[in-house]
Amino acid sequence: MGRATDRREVHRIDLDAPPGRTAVRRPDSLSAEEPLEIRVGPAGPNRRRPLAVTMRTPGDDLDLAIGFLLTEGLIRSADDVHTAQLCAGTETPNTYNVVDVVLSPGVPEPATDPARNFYTTSSCGVCGKASIDAVRTRSVFAVADDPLTVPAAVLAELPDRLRAAQRGFARTGGLHAAGLFTAGGDQVVLREDVGRHNAVDKVIGWAVRERRLPLAGHLLLVSGRASFELTQKAWMAGIPLLAAVSAPSTLAVDLADEAGLTLVGFLRGRTMNVYTHPRRVEV
Amino acid sequence: MGRATDRREVHRIDLDAPPGRTAVRRPDSLSAEEPLEIRVGPAGPNRRRPLAVTMRTPGDDLDLAIGFLLTEGLIRSADDVHTAQLCAGTETPNTYNVVDVVLSPGVPEPATDPARNFYTTSSCGVCGKASIDAVRTRSVFAVADDPLTVPAAVLAELPDRLRAAQRGFARTGGLHAAGLFTAGGDQVVLREDVGRHNAVDKVIGWAVRERRLPLAGHLLLVSGRASFELTQKAWMAGIPLLAAVSAPSTLAVDLADEAGLTLVGFLRGRTMNVYTHPRRVEV
Repeated sequence: MGRATDRREVHRIDLDAPPGRTAVRRPDSLSAEEPLEIRVGPAGPNRRRPLAVTMRTPGDDLDLAIGFLLTEGLIRSADDVHTAQLCAGTETPNTYNVVDVVLSPGVPEPATDPARNFYTTSSCGVCGKASIDAVRTRSVFAVADDPLTVPAAVLAELPDRLRAAQRGFARTGGLHAAGLFTAGGDQVVLREDVGRHNAVDKVIGWAVRERRLPLAGHLLLVSGRASFELTQKAWMAGIPLLAAVSAPSTLAVDLADEAGLTLVGFLRGRTMNVYTHPRRVEV
Repeated sequence: MGRATDRREVHRIDLDAPPGRTAVRRPDSLSAEEPLEIRVGPAGPNRRRPLAVTMRTPGDDLDLAIGFLLTEGLIRSADDVHTAQLCAGTETPNTYNVVDVVLSPGVPEPATDPARNFYTTSSCGVCGKASIDAVRTRSVFAVADDPLTVPAAVLAELPDRLRAAQRGFARTGGLHAAGLFTAGGDQVVLREDVGRHNAVDKVIGWAVRERRLPLAGHLLLVSGRASFELTQKAWMAGIPLLAAVSAPSTLAVDLADEAGLTLVGFLRGRTMNVYTHPRRVEV
């Protein structure tokens, strides 16, 4: 905990590697992702209230909390902050994923109107483990036993198909995409959005309305990185394989491992990294 | 409103173009970004409550709302939704940035515990204009009159400097960065995070604690896209120029225009797009 990067074992697949070297197990460095809870209030015991949880890379957490308060208009300078300190969580081992901010006398407390809250997802606990537990209790679909298998060669073709089908990206160069595919690589639905999580919600919402859940036997491809949040969404929809063009975070890998979900990252050209449950990727 | 892309005028700078063609004005297509408010509750007039606001690209909004409810564990199938419809906002012209979801009888209403709210930012109103108004009223620093000017040739060098200084990215290939620079291109501070907004908050929080606000005469470079949220953060810290390696959204451009903030996008190689207030970029 508290590190900006962490290591996980990965199955590195290179379809153009010499025979016997197509899939290699090796350790890989990942961006750490952990929730940070920001608590704010006046001095005195137990008077701070949770204001926001953000999924962040540990490090410079006091700066993150102070910067958040400033950019959201809750403080105007360092003078508005009496103290700011990292608190150990209640779990063992301590995770230091809470910043406790005491405002200076006279600085208005943040409104507690729910419509002005900053919680970015209900699944955020105080540490990554708590977050994973929260998702597990809410998930209704098991993906661990899904017998889906996909040839690596099919996976390798999907990013080009996704990009080719992205009408908005071609015009703007700035839209994320999420695509649902069959095990044979046929595109079922594609959606675009400035936000990756929105593109995924649009795909899953379409499937809900089409009464296609759980999405057993399907895979989801996203144009960017694989975060905890996207992995959570895939699991909640019963999707057994999530592939991302770019890097996953540590917490995404840990959640996928727990869920029995296959997580593929850096899906580029003829290469990819399989971070969890590699049995579904046929080499 | 309601379109996935929209056009804005841009100053396209190509330092290697023939003389007289280095800076060209032209229209450019941008990814549309607007807030969507999701309201949920039982049937009956005025019984739905705001549950979440997400900054999204308009389109497939019912799918987005239903997918969000499913992936957050609030519904389990289409049967849990009685009706879902787009509502016209209260503004004129109507913006259709609200989805009103009536849950089926017996489906539990979402908890109204503030700790489980989904509002991602307090600045989200019902339409983009309301969001811009909300930021304007909270911003304490004027950036419109900041006399900063930066040679385009200096800007063009900054992405390589940012990347070279990114320790985490080199290891993981998956961390966003935000860097604060002087008008001469000297790096003041750099922060990395899985979230772009967190990297920017870390930079600004550092500046708050160092008592360097407002950050007049400085520029902020981000490794990814320029969203409404990042533009808001730059304005709140008094930064007169925000540069992004990738694309901006419509709402980012509109907010920067309103703030008097220079917004540069697609800063790559020897080229860049200047979306607002180009006087600060010297060609």
